[in-house]
Amino acid sequence: VERSRHQGMAKNTYMRWRLPLVCLLWEVAMIVLFGVFVRFGAEADAHWEEEKREMNLTSDIENDFYFRYPSFQDVHVMIFVGFGFLMTFLKRYGFGAVGFNFLLAAFGIQWALLMQGWFHSFKDGKIFIGVENLINADFCVGSVCIAFGAILGKTSPIQLLVMTLFQVTLFSVNEYILLNLLHVKDAGGSMTIHTFGAYFGLTVTRVLYRPNLEQSKDKQGSVYHSDLFAMIGTLYLWMYWPSFNSAISDHGDAQHRSAINTYCSLAACVLTTMAFSSMLQKKGKLDMVHIQNATLAGGVAVGTSAEMMLTPYGSLIVGSISGIVSTVGYVYFTPFLESRLHIQDTCGIHNLHAMPGLIGGIVGAITAAAATEDVYGKEGFIKAFDFTGVYQTRTPSVQGGFQAAGIMVSLLMAFVGGAIVGGILKLPIWGDAAAENCFEDGVYWEVPEDEESDVYHMHNPDKPASP
Amino acid sequence: VERSRHQGMAKNTYMRWRLPLVCLLWEVAMIVLFGVFVRFGAEADAHWEEEKREMNLTSDIENDFYFRYPSFQDVHVMIFVGFGFLMTFLKRYGFGAVGFNFLLAAFGIQWALLMQGWFHSFKDGKIFIGVENLINADFCVGSVCIAFGAILGKTSPIQLLVMTLFQVTLFSVNEYILLNLLHVKDAGGSMTIHTFGAYFGLTVTRVLYRPNLEQSKDKQGSVYHSDLFAMIGTLYLWMYWPSFNSAISDHGDAQHRSAINTYCSLAACVLTTMAFSSMLQKKGKLDMVHIQNATLAGGVAVGTSAEMMLTPYGSLIVGSISGIVSTVGYVYFTPFLESRLHIQDTCGIHNLHAMPGLIGGIVGAITAAAATEDVYGKEGFIKAFDFTGVYQTRTPSVQGGFQAAGIMVSLLMAFVGGAIVGGILKLPIWGDAAAENCFEDGVYWEVPEDEESDVYHMHNPDKPASP
Amino acid sequence: VERSRHQGMAKNTYMRWRLPLVCLLWEVAMIVLFGVFVRFGAEADAHWEEEKREMNLTSDIENDFYFRYPSFQDVHVMIFVGFGFLMTFLKRYGFGAVGFNFLLAAFGIQWALLMQGWFHSFKDGKIFIGVENLINADFCVGSVCIAFGAILGKTSPIQLLVMTLFQVTLFSVNEYILLNLLHVKDAGGSMTIHTFGAYFGLTVTRVLYRPNLEQSKDKQGSVYHSDLFAMIGTLYLWMYWPSFNSAISDHGDAQHRSAINTYCSLAACVLTTMAFSSMLQKKGKLDMVHIQNATLAGGVAVGTSAEMMLTPYGSLIVGSISGIVSTVGYVYFTPFLESRLHIQDTCGIHNLHAMPGLIGGIVGAITAAAATEDVYGKEGFIKAFDFTGVYQTRTPSVQGGFQAAGIMVSLLMAFVGGAIVGGILKLPIWGDAAAENCFEDGVYWEVPEDEESDVYHMHNPDKPASP
Repeated sequence: VERSRHQGMAKNTYMRWRLPLVCLLWEVAMIVLFGVFVRFGAEADAHWEEEKREMNLTSDIENDFYFRYPSFQDVHVMIFVGFGFLMTFLKRYGFGAVGFNFLLAAFGIQWALLMQGWFHSFKDGKIFIGVENLINADFCVGSVCIAFGAILGKTSPIQLLVMTLFQVTLFSVNEYILLNLLHVKDAGGSMTIHTFGAYFGLTVTRVLYRPNLEQSKDKQGSVYHSDLFAMIGTLYLWMYWPSFNSAISDHGDAQHRSAINTYCSLAACVLTTMAFSSMLQKKGKLDMVHIQNATLAGGVAVGTSAEMMLTPYGSLIVGSISGIVSTVGYVYFTPFLESRLHIQDTCGIHNLHAMPGLIGGIVGAITAAAATEDVYGKEGFIKAFDFTGVYQTRTPSVQGGFQAAGIMVSLLMAFVGGAIVGGILKLPIWGDAAAENCFEDGVYWEVPEDEESDVYHMHNPDKPASP
Repeated sequence: VERSRHQGMAKNTYMRWRLPLVCLLWEVAMIVLFGVFVRFGAEADAHWEEEKREMNLTSDIENDFYFRYPSFQDVHVMIFVGFGFLMTFLKRYGFGAVGFNFLLAAFGIQWALLMQGWFHSFKDGKIFIGVENLINADFCVGSVCIAFGAILGKTSPIQLLVMTLFQVTLFSVNEYILLNLLHVKDAGGSMTIHTFGAYFGLTVTRVLYRPNLEQSKDKQGSVYHSDLFAMIGTLYLWMYWPSFNSAISDHGDAQHRSAINTYCSLAACVLTTMAFSSMLQKKGKLDMVHIQNATLAGGVAVGTSAEMMLTPYGSLIVGSISGIVSTVGYVYFTPFLESRLHIQDTCGIHNLHAMPGLIGGIVGAITAAAATEDVYGKEGFIKAFDFTGVYQTRTPSVQGGFQAAGIMVSLLMAFVGGAIVGGILKLPIWGDAAAENCFEDGVYWEVPEDEESDVYHMHNPDKPASP
Repeated sequence: VERSRHQGMAKNTYMRWRLPLVCLLWEVAMIVLFGVFVRFGAEADAHWEEEKREMNLTSDIENDFYFRYPSFQDVHVMIFVGFGFLMTFLKRYGFGAVGFNFLLAAFGIQWALLMQGWFHSFKDGKIFIGVENLINADFCVGSVCIAFGAILGKTSPIQLLVMTLFQVTLFSVNEYILLNLLHVKDAGGSMTIHTFGAYFGLTVTRVLYRPNLEQSKDKQGSVYHSDLFAMIGTLYLWMYWPSFNSAISDHGDAQHRSAINTYCSLAACVLTTMAFSSMLQKKGKLDMVHIQNATLAGGVAVGTSAEMMLTPYGSLIVGSISGIVSTVGYVYFTPFLESRLHIQDTCGIHNLHAMPGLIGGIVGAITAAAATEDVYGKEGFIKAFDFTGVYQTRTPSVQGGFQAAGIMVSLLMAFVGGAIVGGILKLPIWGDAAAENCFEDGVYWEVPEDEESDVYHMHNPDKPASP
């Protein structure tokens, strides 16, 4: 049992029965619910030959698998290697970063298949899944990985699983409101994934505020090699973001266009990030924190508009601005948020996801409002915004208004949901560590001994501290 | 010349002439054999335009390249980065892990193209290859990478090349027996790759038993950073496993279904692995060895059945069970195997590949035996199990029996083949290191000097040890 | 301000205003030029539905996106992770390797989209881009990454941006001469990317010769972990090279064939590299420098011929030879180039790109000259070499001659261009470091403090050195 000298209160971080219980019970629940509800969609079912005939398809290549599977794998890498390694920058929390991200994402994708399935793929009492569902489940979990960034190093694995359970649920509700009720476009998730995920995480970390966190200040930095590990995460996120934003866009030009816009935005973002990283530092040196994070803001900020006719130069502009905003955020906002608003944001998700997510929502609303039949073509216009059925008469400016409403709803869901979930996570039963043992793998992981003795000295959580 | 104090015998690990000779002679042999036998298949040959007309194909997108190349690249990453980095967990054997894996796989894929080509792509005296052959060659080498895991750190590069030569040969024979003679389904290789590869490797390491291996006990563990390198391997294997199991399935629904089943199985496996890793340790802490390995058992265990109508919840069940079996294996079986059966299994392939491979074979047999026309559809049923030609009258239950026979044949080939190859590798001419210098890159690699002096002290293999 | 004791001259490495100014001004220029010139190509434009009808395409899968996007992403990984991490082998220049590569590539792809667009995709005053343009931009930047390898650790980020600006321009001109004027085939860029890029970089580093570079000799080596980081780069380059060489080949058999040839060449290259690495070292041990680099020469050396009917055994031969040449280069040529020709080639690009690039050009010329209608088929022959229009009457031997001319032109452009650009980079205004601070991240990067004090001691560039 870990004891905290400074706070004078015992913290029980012993996971032996609690963590297995949660993991196993929830996995059993998944099996039961999958057994009742989840079936293969038509394109993954062995009846596909008949389906193909009915749909008048002449070739197996028309199976959605071939349109989306490469993008799916790229997104998959972003969730598990991208987010996982991005967070390994801390000198003594690499196991937790990559390992807990692995755990929460593996649970989250199962729960997301169900939640999103009930909302979007439900027919005759069953959820029918295909590759697009896998992508959407990964997307949903992406918002949890984002929120994880705010509380990295300060929470137990059980807290993360509880947060995942609730956040995936709220994500799916929010997504349903936006996509189905407001009929909003958000293929790359500026609103549903980034804005929602980031403000949710920031609200949670606000509720979980730790006044004595400076006790683990020595472990909040990076070391030379951990910064290189983090760059693996950065680069995979950066390189595959065009796949992320195009993964669930309509077949054909929309996927193609999304990839190009995202590519352009991200390229521009790197230059403005480098510029401001150097400019905002007295010695003019580049800061790895900015390079690891702010270079990605360009992907977030075109998440809504990438599949629209944003145009390559529009993408460069959006990417440039978001790189600047994000870097400035790391230098000025993050310290402000911590000291004034008591928001302790370990990875700076406010700069990488929250602000760029808002930019993305706004750019999306503007781009939608500015759409014309001239630019999109008559058919392309209808297809791009799905102005069919009851939405046949919706105009671009009205669409723009609904897009803006989507931002507001996402924010509201994030704040209210984050406050409630934060309250739940504050209960003293989940096994989080004392402030002095935050950002420390030794609390929940077996750590190789030889380094423990040489390089690093932790407050041993297995013995009561000698006062 | 390295001398072993304890064993009192000299070990000659000098590679200068032996390793180059083997590499060069074998590469020349490959060139000659490729020159005589290997040609481009119809879809990679410049005559494709005519072929297309003959096959009545209207588009280049019907070329198998576009069905399989993305999966091929994912498999390629699994073999070279996945297996290579998974084995970098040892503190002083990262070069050997990634470098020897590179060497044996690069040789193995050439030899596999020939061996598998003779069995499966041989026509008019030539082997005609395309992207599917590349995938199969990678698969075949995957079984060698698995076996390498058992003997990691204890063998010379020449031994590894010799093992690769024989194992690829035996793999191809076994694969031919299963796929062609028994008409067994095994697209993800639970039997041909994992069961065969693992039991082959375990038999080899048994024959090569080193009674004094505790002399290098200090080098058998990991350090903090090496565990993170290993996680790169783990995650790439985990993420791309859906591509692995679907890579050579039939076009269309079968590939699609394989990917979904594998995705589900792997997700479930992570949760049960985490649960048991924490549960089986007194302090309740998670063990990186389990997270790095047992989380992958879910991919192995659906290798045969993923392309069948296993269903998502079936996959969750299989994944859950295999995570538990694998983790329990690391805690209880691995020490038992070493102390009682003298099987020194460096990476624990018994837990990651052998047992889950058996599960995979059994699940495949059951799933095949349980197949009905109702579930698969009339056409789908025939297509899924290839019940055409002489197999037109085979029933699911008979198919299940043949699947079970496939497991037995793979085991038999592994034990007999492993014993013979182990015997060959035991000859004192291959340049393996003494027990005290096992798990040590300095024996076969130039190691950067500054670390050698500071961080690490090896028994210098270049001078006779001063007694 | 950094002072150099030995040279007695002050070196101002302060980046605070210069780097941001260059980055921001150039990004603004990109936005303006993109605004004026760059538009979506037909397959990425919302008018695609109409386009599809006009081109008589029945399915969205015919969009070039689905033919090339998976290859594009692989190439993207090669440029950013492949080249970036390959260069992290230096013990104290990991940030610079991965970070500056990121910076120059992000700028370079924007500028390349314009330059290559003006030459190849320009119509009615606009550049129309699609996924093939993204691949070509990445290719172009690849040549800059190669040149970066020669000057790694010795230049400021501004110098790198200046070099990128000029090199992309020259690359595009050279590419235009080769592909359009000489009508040369070079899909994998043996001439345009590797020969040009490498000799350009070697010329630049010759002009920038630093006589006192031995002052930073202690930082020119690797440490154990940095060699493993570099292997990440190596493996991603190695694995994805089949995608690189096939990415812009014709749809269908040409892409398929390119991938197979490259796969074979690279496999063979690994064996001969290992052989010669061990053979050329007295102790017979393997050298990570060779494994990290020479194993890739096989990909370079089939860059021109991979899409031709080189045949698998031809690829094995080319790969084998290039592995030998490259390894021999590292052992004998690199020291010679430095001591006699004053060419300081940090990464040994002469061995990995220059010589194998020449081999690639020559092999391409021979393969083209040897082409017959018998081997390619009547249609395949015309399609493979694009013998249409004014080139209808060109014979294979003439084509071979033009291919050889392409090598010469690339060399000429590289030498002349490199000399001029080297001269520009020699101007004392770009903020490069003194010889004693080369290969040192601390000059341009915030480096984590705790390691700075423990592990590593640099000549502090922030204070004048006490003489």
